[in-house]
Amino acid sequence: MVIELINTGSELMLGRVLNTHQQWLCRRLADLGHSVARQVAVPDTGADIQSAVREALGRADLVITTGGLGPTSDDLTRDFIAQLLGRKLHEDAAALGHVEEFFTKRNRPMPASTRVQALVPEGARVLMNAHGTAPGLVIETAPNPFRTGGTTSRLVMLPGPPRELHPMFTEQVVPLLREWFPSESAFLCRTLRTTGLGESWVEEKVAGPLKYLTDAGLEIGYCARIGEVDVRLAARGCGAQEDVAEGERIVRSAMGDYVYGTDDESLEQVLIRLLTERKQTLALAESCTGGYVAHRITNVPGASAVLLAGLVTYSNEAKQSFLGVKPETLAIHGAVSEPVARAMAEGARARNRADYALAVTGIAGPSGGNESKPVGTVFIALASARETLVLRRINRYDRETFKFVTSQQALELLRRNALNLPLPD
Amino acid sequence: MVIELINTGSELMLGRVLNTHQQWLCRRLADLGHSVARQVAVPDTGADIQSAVREALGRADLVITTGGLGPTSDDLTRDFIAQLLGRKLHEDAAALGHVEEFFTKRNRPMPASTRVQALVPEGARVLMNAHGTAPGLVIETAPNPFRTGGTTSRLVMLPGPPRELHPMFTEQVVPLLREWFPSESAFLCRTLRTTGLGESWVEEKVAGPLKYLTDAGLEIGYCARIGEVDVRLAARGCGAQEDVAEGERIVRSAMGDYVYGTDDESLEQVLIRLLTERKQTLALAESCTGGYVAHRITNVPGASAVLLAGLVTYSNEAKQSFLGVKPETLAIHGAVSEPVARAMAEGARARNRADYALAVTGIAGPSGGNESKPVGTVFIALASARETLVLRRINRYDRETFKFVTSQQALELLRRNALNLPLPD
Repeated sequence: MVIELINTGSELMLGRVLNTHQQWLCRRLADLGHSVARQVAVPDTGADIQSAVREALGRADLVITTGGLGPTSDDLTRDFIAQLLGRKLHEDAAALGHVEEFFTKRNRPMPASTRVQALVPEGARVLMNAHGTAPGLVIETAPNPFRTGGTTSRLVMLPGPPRELHPMFTEQVVPLLREWFPSESAFLCRTLRTTGLGESWVEEKVAGPLKYLTDAGLEIGYCARIGEVDVRLAARGCGAQEDVAEGERIVRSAMGDYVYGTDDESLEQVLIRLLTERKQTLALAESCTGGYVAHRITNVPGASAVLLAGLVTYSNEAKQSFLGVKPETLAIHGAVSEPVARAMAEGARARNRADYALAVTGIAGPSGGNESKPVGTVFIALASARETLVLRRINRYDRETFKFVTSQQALELLRRNALNLPLPD
Repeated sequence: MVIELINTGSELMLGRVLNTHQQWLCRRLADLGHSVARQVAVPDTGADIQSAVREALGRADLVITTGGLGPTSDDLTRDFIAQLLGRKLHEDAAALGHVEEFFTKRNRPMPASTRVQALVPEGARVLMNAHGTAPGLVIETAPNPFRTGGTTSRLVMLPGPPRELHPMFTEQVVPLLREWFPSESAFLCRTLRTTGLGESWVEEKVAGPLKYLTDAGLEIGYCARIGEVDVRLAARGCGAQEDVAEGERIVRSAMGDYVYGTDDESLEQVLIRLLTERKQTLALAESCTGGYVAHRITNVPGASAVLLAGLVTYSNEAKQSFLGVKPETLAIHGAVSEPVARAMAEGARARNRADYALAVTGIAGPSGGNESKPVGTVFIALASARETLVLRRINRYDRETFKFVTSQQALELLRRNALNLPLPD
């Protein structure tokens, strides 16, 4: 079964927004055993939308479009596709009722422009939008004028806002996929997530031992981001489960404790689970990461069982008053130093009566460095009942990457210490 | 000039990673006056990469590919494109020297697999990679076998890691674009950013007054995310500057103080600039947003001149010890309440001797709500020398969207108060 995705929107082509639909839909489809063959983004113009849809219908069994169903004048996907397929638009009573009810329920008058969202191409099925006004649309092209032999293709049109698209896909499109493609062979995918090693080294460790499986058809992929490398194993058909499981055993044995989690598990999720199981608590003291470590930790539902407090002590005064760092330590060593990182971690641990405290102080840049402490210098400290450890790192990146890499090093320090694993150099 | 973008990577098609290259490259090209006509993502297989490149070369003057130039076995873009164009690969001495030097400089042995990155298709120009090992490649197809009339197309192949791609594009591709397309007519784009109103209402306010300009060719686009709506004005050719400027005057007059900034300006940047100019300081006290407000504020370079501290007080004990919230206030009203939000803001302001303090307490969910305070309930307080204001909101979203929307409301409360603008209801 061939699936293609079309994201419409001039704002995408002008780089004004990030296309998050591609990842979200590809991921959900992969979880259902389908891989997406191609994704295309085009501006909101008739020629571009129509040529993209025409070409996709010529190749794919299922084409999913996103965007262009809303009430404003640049929302034209519905019109262009109806025109391409030679289908008239009519006002659908149920869709109109839904738009009207949406505004009534919220005690807001209905802007006249929103009425256009009740227009539906002939023969299309309407997907009601529980979280907005624009309905989704499903069209079966039988026969398909764009495909050799006229093979039927399905076209699913989804609204652009993620909070409307996500539930509509999950609640209404997934059951249709099961109905349309019941016998699709199993597609299995497993991702092993590592931190602390570069991409080439990860491949050198695992490619040899995995060779006999990849020769037999197991797909292996590497995805490197700064601060992490994922190893992805995928297989289809009978034997897929065994091959992926055997591949995972091999990767784990080659990579050892560099594997921190699997699939979508983040380092923060792994940590929250570990500390929750042990009924241990955590406090944070952040300077240069500015609350980003706390943000990552609190993105995990249930973090409140573990995190007592995060103290973003940007100023020297805040380091003194909230963490008890001594003025002379700051004066002698400077705010970005091993002794201050240590004092911050120990202060955060003591004042919160936490089992662990992580502290970070450094120079995120773009300015503020000097010869002995260049921009990117960071000290990461971990205080526990047993000891206080301090790492020094130089993370020369833009400000947001700096925050990510530094938070990754801090969380990995905690994970390794909590699991009694050897520490990074 | 027609530009198309091809992003290669099976991890993209399986939804394992977000495609950030599309936005980054589209944005840079738009800033240079070029709009991208189409973006395509395909898996790392020969047939997919070759058909995408063949089709793009059939339409576009410039095709940019990303990914697949690295050292691992799934990095095959270079090979597949050389094959498609019938060009042999040879080892380039300068490229090999660069790879070797990369490892020597870092005192690390060179993995044998990295040598493949020195392979260059016949006639290709090499773009040295200052931040990694894989060089970029430029190929001119003259004559172009895939295009009617054989018109020359240019193909630029860039490495996948953003920290390699970004400087290579800026330092080496931008000068080539200026050389190749010197006479491109000016393309101007202006985005006005608003918060606090829905998309339909924004259009109702501005579309009528703008009509005479859009009839004359000014493009208008709306981009709605939860918590903000952008109005984008674009024009090309002579008169573009006047039309966009006149459009901006009209939007500002229709939208009034709902416009907080322009183009890439974020609400946090606007606030940091405002408070820096006035030499005013800020403290934060966060519960349910878990450090996200501090993270947004500290993403702005120079935030340290304004932000004194952010206190992420997840536990009741932390609210007492770091903010001085009274145990009886917590006991009587609960942690998610108007009096606790007020006490948090006033405590954060007093203990940091800040001009302003923002405090947030609420129920991010997925669990923890009750009848009188459902999941999504949040209290946002702002303390200043003059007064303490508290807003109550119900933000029913997933955890991360909840954090964004709540932080947006908090920052907007501060912006409106600091500028003496009327407060939201």
